[in-house]
Order: sequence, then C-alpha cells, then structure tokens
Amino acid sequence: MEKIGFIGLGIMGKPMAKNLLKAGYSLTVYDVVPGPVAEVVEAGAQKGTSCKDVASKSDIVITMLPNSPEVKEAVLGKDGVLDGAKEGMILIDTSSIAPLASQEVSKEAAKKGVIMLDAPVSGGEPKAIDGTLAFMVGGPEDTFNKVKGILDVMGGSVTLVGEIGSGNTTKLANQIIVALNIAAMSEAMTLATKAGVDPEKVFNAIKGGLAGSTVLNAKMPLALEGNFKPGFRIVLHIKDLQNALDTAHSVGVPVPLSSVAMEIMQALKVDGHGADDHGGILQFYEKLAKVEVRRQ
Amino acid sequence: MEKIGFIGLGIMGKPMAKNLLKAGYSLTVYDVVPGPVAEVVEAGAQKGTSCKDVASKSDIVITMLPNSPEVKEAVLGKDGVLDGAKEGMILIDTSSIAPLASQEVSKEAAKKGVIMLDAPVSGGEPKAIDGTLAFMVGGPEDTFNKVKGILDVMGGSVTLVGEIGSGNTTKLANQIIVALNIAAMSEAMTLATKAGVDPEKVFNAIKGGLAGSTVLNAKMPLALEGNFKPGFRIVLHIKDLQNALDTAHSVGVPVPLSSVAMEIMQALKVDGHGADDHGGILQFYEKLAKVEVRRQ
Repeated sequence: MEKIGFIGLGIMGKPMAKNLLKAGYSLTVYDVVPGPVAEVVEAGAQKGTSCKDVASKSDIVITMLPNSPEVKEAVLGKDGVLDGAKEGMILIDTSSIAPLASQEVSKEAAKKGVIMLDAPVSGGEPKAIDGTLAFMVGGPEDTFNKVKGILDVMGGSVTLVGEIGSGNTTKLANQIIVALNIAAMSEAMTLATKAGVDPEKVFNAIKGGLAGSTVLNAKMPLALEGNFKPGFRIVLHIKDLQNALDTAHSVGVPVPLSSVAMEIMQALKVDGHGADDHGGILQFYEKLAKVEVRRQ
Repeated sequence: MEKIGFIGLGIMGKPMAKNLLKAGYSLTVYDVVPGPVAEVVEAGAQKGTSCKDVASKSDIVITMLPNSPEVKEAVLGKDGVLDGAKEGMILIDTSSIAPLASQEVSKEAAKKGVIMLDAPVSGGEPKAIDGTLAFMVGGPEDTFNKVKGILDVMGGSVTLVGEIGSGNTTKLANQIIVALNIAAMSEAMTLATKAGVDPEKVFNAIKGGLAGSTVLNAKMPLALEGNFKPGFRIVLHIKDLQNALDTAHSVGVPVPLSSVAMEIMQALKVDGHGADDHGGILQFYEKLAKVEVRRQ
C-alpha cells in the first residue's frame, strides 16, 4: 500500500484523513493548527513537522486547504511539498481553488518530477465523514487510474473531467449553478409571499415540473423554517464565486448573473450573515422586500 | 354533464378543447382565427359567434388567451363573456397573465354573479395534447372542487394554491426559477467550455449533486446538440418575466436576478432568437464570449 501524506486537517480534511486510516493506509499528517493533528495522530497517523517533512515520507500527498494562496504556500513555499518530494511522487490537491492556480502549481511540480491532480470535492462535512464526497478530477488519465482507489475511500463518485485545472473549473461551474438556483428560489419565494400566496403551496405545485431541482428539494424546506445553520457558509460560497469571476474574466466569459449573485452574498456578509448557510440568501430578499418574517 | 364554453383555440387551447370533447363534454367554442375553430367543430364542438354567445350557452367558460389585455377584452369587452353570462356561471381562465389582472377581472365578474378561477398551466403543447398539464389554481375552494374533474381531463396535476390571482403568482414564481436555472446552466457551461473543459463531462460530474435540476436534465442534452427548437419560445418567457417584474414591483419586491434574465432575453430577441426555445439562452453567452460553436 502506498504511503500517503495529508496536509490540511480542517472541517473537511480531518474526516477524509480518518477514512484513509480506517481503510488501512499509512498516513503522515500536517496542519498549522495542533488540535486536529493530535486527534488524527491519536487515530493512528504519524505526525509530520512540515509540508516538506510530510512529502519526504510519502508516495502520494493529499492537500485540503482553504484557497489558492494556501495551496501555493504549502506546495511551492519554503519547507513546502516540493522541497521534500521525490521524483514520481503524486500530489492530489482536493482544495477548491482557482483552476489557473492549479495549472501554475502543476507546472512547478512537473519541474521536480511530481505529477499533480486537482480534485476538488462537493458534498460538505457530512459526506466527508461518510466517505461519500463527489470528486471532480483534472490531470493525466494514467495518474488518475493509479490513485482512483484511494479517492474511492473518501468519495461516493470520482470523475475524471479533463486536464489539470478541469476539476476546479467543474467545481466553479457547479458553484455558479448552485448559487443562482438558490437565489432564483429566494426571489420567486419572496414574490409569492408578498403577493399573498403560501410559499409552501407554491413549492408543492411547482417542484414536479421544469422548475424542480435538488436545491428546491434540499433548501426550500429549511428556508420555510428559517433554518440557515451551515451546511455551506456564505463566506465560502463568496470565495468560490470570486474564483469563478476571476476565471471567467481571465478566459473571456462575461458572467452577469454570477456577478449579481456575488453582490447579493456580499450584502449578506456585510449584514452579519456570512456564517449562515447559503440557503440564507433568502434573507437578502426578505429584508429588501420588508417581508414580515414568519419565524424566530 | 355541464355545458362548457371554450375561448381561445391556439397552440394550447385547441388540444385542451379536443380533450374535453373526447371526454364527452358538450362544447361551444370561439376564436378570432377561423382555422382552429373549424378543426374543433369538425371534432364535435358547436361554433359560437362571439365570447358573449359562448357564455350564454355555457355553465362553465374556459379561456386560454395570450396575455392580460386579451383576457380583459374577451371577458369585460363589448360582446364579451360577462355580456352573455348567467348568474352562477364559472369562468376558468387558464391563460398565463398578471395576477393583478386576474383579480381585476374576477372583481368585475363577481358583480354579475360569475365566479372566476385563475388556472394557468405549465407543460407546453405536448402535455396539452396528452392531457397531462400542471394546473396552478387560485380561487374559492368550493368552486375549485366543482370544476376539478373538468381540469383533470386536461391535466396531470391540478393544485389549489390560494385565492384568486394565486395561480398566476405561482406560475410567475415557476417562470422566474426556470429562466434563472437555464441562464445559470448557460453561464456555467460557457465558462467550462472556454476554460477548455468538455461541458458534457461537467454535466455528468455535477448532475447528481446540489447543482442537479430538471432544467439541467431536460435542457443540457439539447444545448450540447445546439438544438433550440421550441418548446417554449423566448418571446413567451419575456412576456412572463414582464408580468413577474410588474407584479414584484407592485407588491414591493426587488428582483435583481429576474431583471438581468429579462435583459438577456431581450438581447436574444433583438438578435433574432425570440422564436427559439428558452434553452437558447446559451447563445447569449456563446456570442458574448466568442465561443467557437461546435455545431451547425
């Protein structure tokens, strides 16, 4: 069995690392925060002293970090992954970052004989714990085939979508659709409410038709209760939309609706709702439209 | 069996009237265009000479007309439905119009003892032919219960959502969600394409997650082929969005995303795509982003 390094033991990384340990993999782990490191070491991992140290002890290094700058620092920075990597090592970055950053890091990695896959996930903490994340993977097919079994331990679906960066492009496409489907539901629901129609009846009347969606089924019942506990925080969706806007403009695609969705989320953040679930976009409309909120 | 009048034998009205005839109802019909009248008379209907004439021979009058002005003219105008209606007659307007117009017409109807339901449909011509439309109905519950059997002849689902106007409010909520879900898919797909990722692979990677929707399943395969044959024409969706914007502003709901979706559809109309299916929103992005179109 390959020796695996795991860097980044946050809300997502910690349960992912634990699932690899449960599957019998030998793991060396690193995080700047000591608490989760101790917890994963307790579960059977070796403690690494730096990204370099982790890489020097591993055939495959998995990173799960907040955004592009953290990935660049961990891989390309001083005492980073590339400082410790042996030729032929595989780097799987499961962070959700800008596709152009994935391509940039991959190019540097290649100079040291390290092959990189970008493999962001969707599904959030519950699916990280259950090992049923959806991996969207970019990179060479033979490398993908070598590590698919490892990703299967953490994921329910593992799909190769193209060259390096394609995983994150796919994730951005996903996040654009999710943000706008939630905002569309919120705009429609607020219109119905202020026009005097029970939004639950609207929901039941339309969910079986062309307006039906996973967002409607998953988020509408929570919205009706005013339950905006995360889930997936608005500030994280802001990060993804910023990467989507940057990428779109860089490759030459005007994205007017994503841009408006970004401003709606910025307004919510300013108003103290950044830590709410993205289903809380509804509150932007309720406040603007002075909807008398039917709940606590 | 109640005697039914049917006014408006267009793409939707003609097959709806034929389904009522097949179910054994006695029908008097009227349209300003002679061709479809002759066709429905051939199928067994009586020919009416005006809206007034149809109403004078019917217990229940069904209207299926393009928009609010046509409904007002047919019901409230000279030789209109109310000129011929007996007290106790039921008027079912299945047109997709402004909810405020439904309320206005209903108020006038009530002065003559006529009870009105607004009962717009979704599903388009194929479901009108199959008798599987989705009816969203607003009006008094006892009147709804009286006519539900008749709507069941033309519909697969018939839902009472609230007072008069609620049917059309529900339809507008539906149309906001559909327009934005299609536009979101188009924005995401164009980003993926220009970033060098096969949109079909993106589609397959994300459709099972939170980005999944009926729009994605129904419209994405057609978009990949460049098939934008209607279906539901962009000019009709423009009509619905205009009613949505008017209603939203009238009840006090800012709808920034619907407003952008409206401008996108206006641009497509100017560019000669008004008669395309609303799935053709993709072409707005492809043109703006100078995507080299992979098809004829």
